[in-house]
Amino acid sequence: MNELKERIMASSSSDLSGIEEALDKGLNPCLALISDVAGHILFAGGKRIRPLLMVLSARLCGYAGNDDKAVSVMFEYLHAATLLHDDLVDGADVRRGRQVSHLIWGNSTTVLVGDFLLAKTISIAADTGHMEIVRTISDAISRMAEGEIHQLANREKIDVDEAEYMEIIHRKTACLIQAACRVGAIFASASAEREKTMSNYGRDLGIAFQMVDDLLDYTADTKVLGKSTGSDLREGKMTLPLIYAIGRAQGKDKKRMQEIIRDRASSESAIHEMLGYLKEYGGIAYTSEKASQYAEKAKQRLAIFEDCDAKTILTDLADYTIKRKE
Amino acid sequence: MNELKERIMASSSSDLSGIEEALDKGLNPCLALISDVAGHILFAGGKRIRPLLMVLSARLCGYAGNDDKAVSVMFEYLHAATLLHDDLVDGADVRRGRQVSHLIWGNSTTVLVGDFLLAKTISIAADTGHMEIVRTISDAISRMAEGEIHQLANREKIDVDEAEYMEIIHRKTACLIQAACRVGAIFASASAEREKTMSNYGRDLGIAFQMVDDLLDYTADTKVLGKSTGSDLREGKMTLPLIYAIGRAQGKDKKRMQEIIRDRASSESAIHEMLGYLKEYGGIAYTSEKASQYAEKAKQRLAIFEDCDAKTILTDLADYTIKRKE
Repeated sequence: MNELKERIMASSSSDLSGIEEALDKGLNPCLALISDVAGHILFAGGKRIRPLLMVLSARLCGYAGNDDKAVSVMFEYLHAATLLHDDLVDGADVRRGRQVSHLIWGNSTTVLVGDFLLAKTISIAADTGHMEIVRTISDAISRMAEGEIHQLANREKIDVDEAEYMEIIHRKTACLIQAACRVGAIFASASAEREKTMSNYGRDLGIAFQMVDDLLDYTADTKVLGKSTGSDLREGKMTLPLIYAIGRAQGKDKKRMQEIIRDRASSESAIHEMLGYLKEYGGIAYTSEKASQYAEKAKQRLAIFEDCDAKTILTDLADYTIKRKE
Repeated sequence: MNELKERIMASSSSDLSGIEEALDKGLNPCLALISDVAGHILFAGGKRIRPLLMVLSARLCGYAGNDDKAVSVMFEYLHAATLLHDDLVDGADVRRGRQVSHLIWGNSTTVLVGDFLLAKTISIAADTGHMEIVRTISDAISRMAEGEIHQLANREKIDVDEAEYMEIIHRKTACLIQAACRVGAIFASASAEREKTMSNYGRDLGIAFQMVDDLLDYTADTKVLGKSTGSDLREGKMTLPLIYAIGRAQGKDKKRMQEIIRDRASSESAIHEMLGYLKEYGGIAYTSEKASQYAEKAKQRLAIFEDCDAKTILTDLADYTIKRKE
């Protein structure tokens, strides 16, 4: 696993340092406070996976210029904007190992810096001159907001089924990764087939990514994850491990699971108890299997492209997505 | 005054009903909850001044088609998005005579519906096919966020001067009205000179508009205004009437004014006391005079256009801006 991560890091190191440089250069707000708040989340060791995906997708589709990094950072700005707005939503207290912004600077500043980053994103998209890129971004913003609202509206609702879960994770996570891959293809002026393929690759990868996130929320080592486990349970979010397991549990066990969900249990012992049920009723194994299937599908989509470095990294990224521990 | 308002309403009635229809048609979210939250603010008797300005500006610049209303509603969506995010910021409790959204649906849903409306705005801008319109909108979003953050950062700061106030109101209010007028011109494929003129008209009108808002926050009849007076004082916002008056007050009066500001006074008697100082030291008269100057300048800019209905309404709107009581 570490070998895989190191290989990805090594092959992407020049892209990643280009992205890091562009992130810092691109921000340019008129107020120091905006730099502080945006920088707090932007420079807290994010993996830059979304910009990297755009850059790799563009290269896979034949782009050979040097403007890709400056464009790709819009996905990190957009991601940071949604984190700023969502952490407020989730009532999260720690993100990427740091205290979340709204507890330091307040709700107001946090929301407005998120808006500033959204505007920055659109402005970079407009500067590409591709209206299709602007459209892809505005679609992604609207779908993400809808996904989060949908999830909020589902709080307290125990009978979320797998189809509804799939729709939510597509909107809240996969569609941004999908957008990054699609925009890379558009930026490279790829054919419609290649654009569609990269869009599908991104969607499948994003779904696998979120499923693994939802697994790790129960199974991860808190220190490695950089935030506490059990947060979905605490926030009343029904994710696949739980949806699958509760659908199979019976009698006393099912009742106890429902009780833990209703109580928004946050004690370590309750989370540990729930993890026991998720294992017993196959929720962990099922989710893990599903995530692998999506990652596998993502990789297979790349078959239409000739072998190259970008293709290798995109393949490795799909493998890494399901093997990561954080 | 009422005569002026009636004349504007009569001459714009077909535009306004077209805008109203387009607003309802254009929203189209996938979740009922979004319609509820967005509708709560969108259909609470807003005056649709921003869409109307875009439509009039386009017509003044020679646009004669029927697609303008569907485009113009983006300014109402954008305005509603900023209200949803700003009411959270301001801790306001009443807007347009209704309880504000975040007290009914919570911070999270309110922020996310704001994001949904921002995305809708960008998507309508992209559909015009004019990248310059997308750029104008993203600029406006970023300036508005910067303006609000600037104002937040100034809370508790008593020595705000007129120049800083001008910068804040330009960003938080005038730039959206400016964008509406400018986009109307771009949509009509106007010459650079006409586009610049409409942009300047919008900025001057917007500045006058905000100055009058800041006056009304002290002087208005609560029932007519649809919200309580003194809210700027309560939120620690230094506006022009206060900036001017405190700069001229001396000794005991100045001390008392500073005390009221520091206490974030919210009692009717404290607000009434402050209003007395604002009148005594010329803050009300000065702000009123400044607002008139900006409205006058806005009107004069229209001189490059031939007389027509749109020009008459835009002239009336400038007059109305400074004469309104709400």
